[in-house]
Amino acid sequence: MKVIKHKTDVCIIGFGSAGMRAFRAATKAGKKALIVHDGPYGTSCARNGCMPSKLLIAAANAAFDAKHAEIFGVHPREVVVDEAHVMQRVRHLRDMFVSHVLEKVEAIPEAQRICGKAHFVSDHVIAVGDDVHIEAKTFVIATGSTALVPPNFPKDCDRIITNEEVFLWEKLPKSIAVFGTGVIGLELGQALVRLGVRTTVFGRSGQVSSMSDPELCTIATEIFRQEMDIYPQPTIHSMTPEDNGVRIKFRSFDGHEHDIHYDYVLSAVGRRPNLDTLKLENTSLTLDKRGMPTFDPQTTQCGESNIFIAGDANGFRSLLHEAADEGDIAGANAAAFPTVKKFKRKVSLGIVFTDPEMITVGTMFAELPSGGFVTGEMDFARQARAEMINKNRGKLHVYIDKKTQHLLGAEMIGPHAEHIAHLLAWAIEMEMTLDQLLKMPFYHPTVEEGLRGALQHAAKQLAKPKE
Amino acid sequence: MKVIKHKTDVCIIGFGSAGMRAFRAATKAGKKALIVHDGPYGTSCARNGCMPSKLLIAAANAAFDAKHAEIFGVHPREVVVDEAHVMQRVRHLRDMFVSHVLEKVEAIPEAQRICGKAHFVSDHVIAVGDDVHIEAKTFVIATGSTALVPPNFPKDCDRIITNEEVFLWEKLPKSIAVFGTGVIGLELGQALVRLGVRTTVFGRSGQVSSMSDPELCTIATEIFRQEMDIYPQPTIHSMTPEDNGVRIKFRSFDGHEHDIHYDYVLSAVGRRPNLDTLKLENTSLTLDKRGMPTFDPQTTQCGESNIFIAGDANGFRSLLHEAADEGDIAGANAAAFPTVKKFKRKVSLGIVFTDPEMITVGTMFAELPSGGFVTGEMDFARQARAEMINKNRGKLHVYIDKKTQHLLGAEMIGPHAEHIAHLLAWAIEMEMTLDQLLKMPFYHPTVEEGLRGALQHAAKQLAKPKE
Repeated sequence: MKVIKHKTDVCIIGFGSAGMRAFRAATKAGKKALIVHDGPYGTSCARNGCMPSKLLIAAANAAFDAKHAEIFGVHPREVVVDEAHVMQRVRHLRDMFVSHVLEKVEAIPEAQRICGKAHFVSDHVIAVGDDVHIEAKTFVIATGSTALVPPNFPKDCDRIITNEEVFLWEKLPKSIAVFGTGVIGLELGQALVRLGVRTTVFGRSGQVSSMSDPELCTIATEIFRQEMDIYPQPTIHSMTPEDNGVRIKFRSFDGHEHDIHYDYVLSAVGRRPNLDTLKLENTSLTLDKRGMPTFDPQTTQCGESNIFIAGDANGFRSLLHEAADEGDIAGANAAAFPTVKKFKRKVSLGIVFTDPEMITVGTMFAELPSGGFVTGEMDFARQARAEMINKNRGKLHVYIDKKTQHLLGAEMIGPHAEHIAHLLAWAIEMEMTLDQLLKMPFYHPTVEEGLRGALQHAAKQLAKPKE
Repeated sequence: MKVIKHKTDVCIIGFGSAGMRAFRAATKAGKKALIVHDGPYGTSCARNGCMPSKLLIAAANAAFDAKHAEIFGVHPREVVVDEAHVMQRVRHLRDMFVSHVLEKVEAIPEAQRICGKAHFVSDHVIAVGDDVHIEAKTFVIATGSTALVPPNFPKDCDRIITNEEVFLWEKLPKSIAVFGTGVIGLELGQALVRLGVRTTVFGRSGQVSSMSDPELCTIATEIFRQEMDIYPQPTIHSMTPEDNGVRIKFRSFDGHEHDIHYDYVLSAVGRRPNLDTLKLENTSLTLDKRGMPTFDPQTTQCGESNIFIAGDANGFRSLLHEAADEGDIAGANAAAFPTVKKFKRKVSLGIVFTDPEMITVGTMFAELPSGGFVTGEMDFARQARAEMINKNRGKLHVYIDKKTQHLLGAEMIGPHAEHIAHLLAWAIEMEMTLDQLLKMPFYHPTVEEGLRGALQHAAKQLAKPKE
């Protein structure tokens, strides 16, 4: 068999959100770049992630809000969810978002794009299938991640699915068991509940929240349990495929035994970087127990090597905006190698698009130095604007450094949290102090005034004379 | 008649949003403060302004969103607006907000609160009615403002009303003519349309927008005309009270003649500071043609006098958060007089709670130095998150200084604009440059990414080589 050999400056493995940015950055730096991609193009974000989930949520919230408009004196006679229509819109717009990505892919000359599964032969050579060898000065691994299915779930059961399958549905199932109370489990679980699917959400650790602040986690659990059937810490006895579904036998925390049929089981227990088939053992990279290469988030460089890793593949912060940043960093550094520059990473910013939304900004509560900060609180139950729009649920905690009075971080479940998250993240980026924050304009009546309330609460504590 | 005489350090005339803050600031500074207030307590904001209008809007948007949920595949069979229920909630929550204010008022000893209409006798003495004289070292005028009714409107017609009467309604009228295309006219006009009231909005200048950027004004007019019957520049022939309403004969800009009955006419043509009965002519203050005292917004001091003016009464920026700031400034300066400190005023921030919302932040387009800036644009028609939630209408303009690359200001009509407004206002307060702004985190998928799009568009223009 004849082996086709390619030579390039930078080889990008995986052409999703991170890989596309790495390619652009390397090309912009004047280097020759080659792409190797396995499977259809289109990014996890557009195909199975951020985009279609937000579309499903938009429909779910429209149904929920219509059903709850009564409090305002607005009475829809009956709210009918047209499942086929819901899924049609989800798929239609998803396809449009994917097509925007594909346009960008197709703008790249075909000669620079190689299809297939890559594995390393050495630090400087990868093979794609049996017949293609690529020698490159540097590599960017941007192979993304795959939804995990727990090993003890039944094998080869087409009713056990991940988020990828959800967005292919032409109509909704009657019932579903969602495993996982992280971002994906809660977002999709709540959306399906609101669209009329009988949904049970199973946790493992007992935590039903993306936050780390115990008080806020408790509030989140209470809020979600009001509309969702959630078992945060069940004991699963068995999961048995049967006609058109799966039967789950489990014991809930209160000791009750359950035996329930679900049309589908959705595994949302986490995602694993796609590194298994890369044969990283053929490189000089240092791998940890899970086979993950050690790397520096500020450079994306793996050790001192010529190999960089960006996006979901590195397991650092699996978020679109971080993947894009890492793509930029990896592409620039792969082009400039052996000169490697440290880039400032952005303030951590996480948003879960449940209703109410959950956010984590800056240093999470769990990572704060104990005793070194005060917590400013705002309960949205009595926040004026939140009451007006009937979204007065949730709480905000801001963490302020006792000495420097800098804003360190914040966690919140509550109304308009995605916007509060941006304000807070920018404030931390700008290294704002509590005093500066309190001098900012807050329009009336807005949910942002709730943020001011939390800041004022922190200021009161800092002003207290020491006992 | 026996005249009761009071002596005090600071006398606050008017106890609304500005007066309450002035009282607090003066008291905090250790001064004796007296309040003179005419009419019921409770602030314009809570009684007739920000609060009840946002409540009416919340109901209106709930009705609108329910009726437009079809696009998501969510079909309410029929959306019935229960007028009595809508107005009951508006009044109930309004009363609650007012009661919060009254609690604060009642916490102040009665001896410090005098009821009645005040007028100046001299720079240091006011009379309240015939029998009370108050001598004070300094005064804070915080008498608020009143909705104007154009002088050519019929007199003594109970069907010609202002926003104050709207929130007393127990049910909605069948029809209404709204005069004014400013904040109040557009907010209430749109809310009434969405609640099923046959509504015509009459302008005067042709402008249907709170913004000054001509392109955005045109877009705003187009958007509002899609759902509202608006005549931006009509010729009113006559307005005649008749049974249960008012008949208006007018010619629209296209030459058509109209003759229409409305149950009510709502005057929303502007507000006038409440200074008429203060007899400012008895003081040494310099008054302009309209009888307004000249004053410094950074001190709230009228000329070099011992009289300060805050809130709507000074006609500077009739917004709650500005009134509160001015109260703080006036109270502090009235207490410290003759030492008077200049305070930094906040970046200008205006939000109109129409749907879509309109915002003006920092320097308005109309006030920008021509040629000294570039405009970064974002059309929300194709903004991903806006499309997902079916709110993809409107446009954002950010104005960036060509030389310093500082953000100068922004105007926008579009989704989530109230939140974008806060981000932009804070960014201007922090004197952020375009480069800094582009390094901030933008989560995906959010409307904030639309702001980034506008910033990138500005950056492209600045990067262009000069022709």
